[in-house]
Amino acid sequence: MFPSSDNDVILICTSILSLSEVLNSMPLRRLKRHTLFVDVLSVKEHPRNVLLQVLPENMDVLCTHPMFGPESGKNGWKDLPLVYEKVRVRDETRCSSFLHIFESEGCRMVEMSCEEHDKVAARSQFLSHSIGRILAEMGIESTSMNTKSFETLVKLKESTTNDSFDLFSGLFIHNRFAQQELMNLEQSFEKVKQRLLKKMSEQQSLSSV
Amino acid sequence: MFPSSDNDVILICTSILSLSEVLNSMPLRRLKRHTLFVDVLSVKEHPRNVLLQVLPENMDVLCTHPMFGPESGKNGWKDLPLVYEKVRVRDETRCSSFLHIFESEGCRMVEMSCEEHDKVAARSQFLSHSIGRILAEMGIESTSMNTKSFETLVKLKESTTNDSFDLFSGLFIHNRFAQQELMNLEQSFEKVKQRLLKKMSEQQSLSSV
Repeated sequence: MFPSSDNDVILICTSILSLSEVLNSMPLRRLKRHTLFVDVLSVKEHPRNVLLQVLPENMDVLCTHPMFGPESGKNGWKDLPLVYEKVRVRDETRCSSFLHIFESEGCRMVEMSCEEHDKVAARSQFLSHSIGRILAEMGIESTSMNTKSFETLVKLKESTTNDSFDLFSGLFIHNRFAQQELMNLEQSFEKVKQRLLKKMSEQQSLSSV
Repeated sequence: MFPSSDNDVILICTSILSLSEVLNSMPLRRLKRHTLFVDVLSVKEHPRNVLLQVLPENMDVLCTHPMFGPESGKNGWKDLPLVYEKVRVRDETRCSSFLHIFESEGCRMVEMSCEEHDKVAARSQFLSHSIGRILAEMGIESTSMNTKSFETLVKLKESTTNDSFDLFSGLFIHNRFAQQELMNLEQSFEKVKQRLLKKMSEQQSLSSV
């Protein structure tokens, strides 16, 4: 059935981890010669590289990342970011028609390179997921005396664990900047801890005078 | 001027770190014999211990923690938690009159022991501040492709750094449960990191097959 030779556009909606396997299992020869391939993965250098490697030269490649999910997009997509790079686009009209689907829903269209996307997403999306996973690991729960800030952390934990661990590990494994951000997070944690311990030892010296 | 012998209630609004110094500098002998001392510190076992140690037996002690600040309470105090313990209250009427100030503003009145407060606050307030400080240390900023979750983290960073480092270190130094939570946070971080690294190495073995 799918993909058939009639498709103008093939939209790849796999998990990050299964992309290569899925693409390699597709009967590319039975498609139209000038098909447009679009992916929606939450990392961008990885699908760009795989698509350019696997697809024949005559097929177009558009890499996109709709930065919202069932939770954040449940009341419509207005002002939510759709990030994209026209990686190899010869048929501009067809590509524009596809992007227009998101434009007409009110998405904020952000054109940037796959590399730039991954750099920024490592610092925003991956970081949010990491903190959500750490809070889940700690088993934090709502209390009778929540501060507003803590309430947002409980929500972050919940929305993160609604996503699969495969998504989270995909964000890490296939985004080289994410690996750097995990180190940054660890180093920043250590710095904050050292500042607290230093202050504690200063206070103890003061009170023993 | 203050504190004068006329005061029925003395409200202690010092920083956590300066509490002992401030109390020890007060002319306690010039106060009414049955004054009610109330503190509003963000830790509770510490002021309870210090107040019981410093104040004469005949003075009443009410420990409170209004769990909101200039930011979260700027549109009124309705439904925001006021945690308190009547540590040593003989004059119930006067204590109730004081608590009524918060009740009449719509605060959610939460009576619990100082110990229980510190246990819960270490897991909510201190944890929020720690994560806010770590994000500040990383220098995170709003991006053109924020997810909703990341936006809440940027706000957390901003509200945390609006508070002083003295407050943050006070939450740590004078709450024995906070020290435990910092270790929990560190251990949970390590577990999440190890799970990611394990998954990455599994994926690399798979793709090299």
